[in-house]
Amino acid sequence: QNSILSGIGTTIFTVMSALANEHGAINLGQGFPDYDGPDDVIDAAAAALKDGRNQYPPLTGVPELRQAVANHNERFYGIKVDPNAEVVVTSGATEAITACLMAVLDPGDEVVLIEPLYDTYAPTVRLLGAVPRIVRLQPPQWDLPRAELAAAFNPRTKAILFNTPMNPTGKVFTEAELAFIAELVRKHDCYAICDEVYEHLIFDGWKHRPLMSVPGMRERCMRIGSAGKTFNLTGWKVGYITCDRVLQPNVAKAHQNLTFTTAPNLQRGVAVGLAKGDEYFTGLASALQAKRDLMREGLADLGFGVLETRGTYFITVDVRPLGWTGDDVSFCRAITEEAKVTAIPNSAFYATPNAPSQYVRFAFCKNDALLTEALARLRAWI
Amino acid sequence: QNSILSGIGTTIFTVMSALANEHGAINLGQGFPDYDGPDDVIDAAAAALKDGRNQYPPLTGVPELRQAVANHNERFYGIKVDPNAEVVVTSGATEAITACLMAVLDPGDEVVLIEPLYDTYAPTVRLLGAVPRIVRLQPPQWDLPRAELAAAFNPRTKAILFNTPMNPTGKVFTEAELAFIAELVRKHDCYAICDEVYEHLIFDGWKHRPLMSVPGMRERCMRIGSAGKTFNLTGWKVGYITCDRVLQPNVAKAHQNLTFTTAPNLQRGVAVGLAKGDEYFTGLASALQAKRDLMREGLADLGFGVLETRGTYFITVDVRPLGWTGDDVSFCRAITEEAKVTAIPNSAFYATPNAPSQYVRFAFCKNDALLTEALARLRAWI
Ligand SMILES: CSCCC(=O)C(=O)O
Ligand SMILES: CSCCC(=O)C(=O)O
Repeated sequence: QNSILSGIGTTIFTVMSALANEHGAINLGQGFPDYDGPDDVIDAAAAALKDGRNQYPPLTGVPELRQAVANHNERFYGIKVDPNAEVVVTSGATEAITACLMAVLDPGDEVVLIEPLYDTYAPTVRLLGAVPRIVRLQPPQWDLPRAELAAAFNPRTKAILFNTPMNPTGKVFTEAELAFIAELVRKHDCYAICDEVYEHLIFDGWKHRPLMSVPGMRERCMRIGSAGKTFNLTGWKVGYITCDRVLQPNVAKAHQNLTFTTAPNLQRGVAVGLAKGDEYFTGLASALQAKRDLMREGLADLGFGVLETRGTYFITVDVRPLGWTGDDVSFCRAITEEAKVTAIPNSAFYATPNAPSQYVRFAFCKNDALLTEALARLRAWI
Repeated sequence: QNSILSGIGTTIFTVMSALANEHGAINLGQGFPDYDGPDDVIDAAAAALKDGRNQYPPLTGVPELRQAVANHNERFYGIKVDPNAEVVVTSGATEAITACLMAVLDPGDEVVLIEPLYDTYAPTVRLLGAVPRIVRLQPPQWDLPRAELAAAFNPRTKAILFNTPMNPTGKVFTEAELAFIAELVRKHDCYAICDEVYEHLIFDGWKHRPLMSVPGMRERCMRIGSAGKTFNLTGWKVGYITCDRVLQPNVAKAHQNLTFTTAPNLQRGVAVGLAKGDEYFTGLASALQAKRDLMREGLADLGFGVLETRGTYFITVDVRPLGWTGDDVSFCRAITEEAKVTAIPNSAFYATPNAPSQYVRFAFCKNDALLTEALARLRAWI
């Protein structure tokens, strides 16, 4: 059997969700809402099952969704996109990431990654015979260590893959950080794979800025969005890649080998979603910001050290101010079993040794009543 | 960019479907029905969008579908399967094939493939750093050349990947051929990846026999099925892998890196489909057999040499008896542009040089009126 896969455990999200079920815990681990997506999007997907378009759609996606992705890029970021030659719809952002990596990497190439990172990044790079070069953000501010980042690039670098707004940290890369990354990508004549699935989940007036919209980056970026996150429909697994027409053929051929195509009725539902008015997108962010605030205040009240979160579904706390002397893994196990609240240890987002061990991530994409109950359970336990 | 992907063209299915559209041709190329799937399956999938289960389902599939896959294995083939530890649901059979290859292959491993073959097999093996070892069936009977097959296995062989009933040939591997393959797999202590998506599309009293049900093969096989083919819903992209509990963790981890999971409403629809009565499955095969007969007789009448097809959506003809002196590619182009009927050149299913050049594949999973019209157009053209 494949040695890379044999060497890694079951994903932390499955492990902690199973543990949550076993103990009847409130699951603030894996990042999925406990509320449903917009009715019009769901209704459109249901109606689309009934009009006889249940066979293979085009490899790169149904025309309606490719057009909607192009419009969305222009409307929010001023990026002009040819829907016929610069968009590939995928079966979720996970496939999109794998397709983008597969499109550009040859064995022996290097990929710069930024830790803490989503748990498929490093294994997928290695499964393709390439080598991850990992730079670590320093908590609690999660600033980008520029000299280290620059040193990670070299003539073997084929791409950087990073996530903004960033899971699990809630960091939003600043304009200056993006300019610094752009300069490295340009200087080393490589690509950027931009996992931007949380683009609309952003708080406090922060604005998402795609690296693709930075001057000189249009041709070098593969930008990934996700209906799961943008429409609270994480199970649908509809993602979309925007990239230059020179990159798109290889991305499409990678997609062909990974899934070939994606269910047309779900694609048509997502096309309806992307065409929604601005109030949908601002409402999505403000509703989530209120949940962030609820958790931020509640967790601070309980004595946690609460880190800033500017976007995503997630908030990270330091458990040391509570007096916890074990690590993050034992903390998450303890609160699941004893307080009946589940979270994810931050160390699960590291692919290199000596991860920090005092941070824990809570998902707040849940009904307020559930968040309040979780805080009450934690209070009783403490 | 990745050199393997850069070196291959757009998939023949997309090329020929685009050409068909351009010329207003009847598309008997890409294999998808022009009729819809069963109402109860579609209705179940539509209803499942409305009851609040639109978030991530379990990584390996919703419990209903895993149970249905286990039941289906036992009911049709007497294979007992643990739905919790021996099934992985994927976003279509393409992902299933890639996940199975990824689960077992290390760079440098060899995989035995049988030509003519589906167009993702060889590139996917190579993208994972492994080496395809290709054995070619001889038309017009498509018999398995046993000595060559035996010679393709060696100490570096990690797996054989093959398809029965077989696209594009319509071959059904015989009991004796399966026993021969089983012996090689056993002797070389390797795995078999069994693409059995056409398991229920089989004619003339032929029975599908999974290699997995051959003695000694239970632990060595990854058996792949597809809702697209079994329920005429090719766009849904729901596949399922059945494998031993020792293999399943790596298959699940590969799936995690490829798509993570598959839309729960479509999975629940497919669970309803797999539970349908025997008359559904026999009716599916007999309806398709009638279409096969229509095309077989019609194409023979026109003067083609018609090869036997025992299963799948496809029938292959020899164009030389017609007096065509060009190759299969030019033939397919000519009938698309002039007769307004599209087919796929058989040579597109070869990954090694010197493919036979006189065979053409027609899909017959279409309404009888369309098949009849296609035959009339071909008659007028000839
Ligand atoms: C695909 S399961 C993980 C969901 C998620 O993005 C997270 O919890 O970090
Ligand atoms: C996934 S597109 C190809 C459909 C098919 O299996 C075929 O036409 O051979």
